[in-house]
Amino acid sequence: MPILPIIHKTEQVASSRLFQVEEVHLEFSNGEQRVFERLVSRGYGAVLIVPMLDNETVLMIREYAAGTERYELGLPKGKVELGEDLFVAANRELMEEVGHGAHHIQLLKRVSLAPGYMGHHTNLLLARDLYPARYPGDEPEPLEVIPWKLNRLDELVAGDECTEGRSLLALYMVRDLFMRLRR
Amino acid sequence: MPILPIIHKTEQVASSRLFQVEEVHLEFSNGEQRVFERLVSRGYGAVLIVPMLDNETVLMIREYAAGTERYELGLPKGKVELGEDLFVAANRELMEEVGHGAHHIQLLKRVSLAPGYMGHHTNLLLARDLYPARYPGDEPEPLEVIPWKLNRLDELVAGDECTEGRSLLALYMVRDLFMRLRR
Repeated sequence: MPILPIIHKTEQVASSRLFQVEEVHLEFSNGEQRVFERLVSRGYGAVLIVPMLDNETVLMIREYAAGTERYELGLPKGKVELGEDLFVAANRELMEEVGHGAHHIQLLKRVSLAPGYMGHHTNLLLARDLYPARYPGDEPEPLEVIPWKLNRLDELVAGDECTEGRSLLALYMVRDLFMRLRR
Repeated sequence: MPILPIIHKTEQVASSRLFQVEEVHLEFSNGEQRVFERLVSRGYGAVLIVPMLDNETVLMIREYAAGTERYELGLPKGKVELGEDLFVAANRELMEEVGHGAHHIQLLKRVSLAPGYMGHHTNLLLARDLYPARYPGDEPEPLEVIPWKLNRLDELVAGDECTEGRSLLALYMVRDLFMRLRR
């Protein structure tokens, strides 16, 4: 592995309620110096859940996305709260957004979004053995829950309703997992 | 499809050299009002390329990521420049980061990163029929190019060298595509 650059200084250059931008002053092992900007992750991470109703059907949601100004088809997700366990956070989000809890939740992978300029990570989780349970969320409107068959993943990828990379990756991972289980 | 919320106002609340944060004042079709923060995408989009050396081998790179403060194994990527065609941008990034150009480049999918709070999109592209070509980039140090077999994707996912969701998604998509072609 290459030698990590030295971080000589970090400095906040912008900040809002949700976001914090930092300059990081780096010296690489070859002596090259750079100043990069990055978005600092201030929270406790995020969870994105693949809730399987049965071995073939995933429960997706349609939700308004303020970043892209459109309704996006994707997987339930949310922020982990202070002191909250990953699996507890995942189950809470499931109950808030999908109206189900899960007896089984497992971590698939912790992914980064854009590691070059963001410190953010999302924990992708698989939820199985669902049971109906509703926990009130803070959504401005009820979310539409949409069952989708894993064997129709190609269709989802080819269409334009679901664009979120993290959601699509999690679905590929779960489809692979279930294909292996079936062998 | 649900009715889009009305955007009553957007207002810049923080800004730096690279980032711009906005408040967006929304009214949903049920009358609920919310103020959300979002990161505005100011550029011309980004490209992330899966360069296939042959039908089995993808050329990955190891690069320092300032957001996560570690060397990340991932796919070549970069920003599209003003007036630049997507495919031209992809080929330029390939030549800068991998030391190859490509005779064939095709769009796999345009994905969003975190549509709830970011406007950013990345175009995932597949590059084939590579030829050696080097274009000088602005990297602080030479990038390590690492050939990886597509049939070892599980290993890559299970390990912790490659965490970027976009890169992993693009690899799943290309693996599926090549499996279909082989049938």
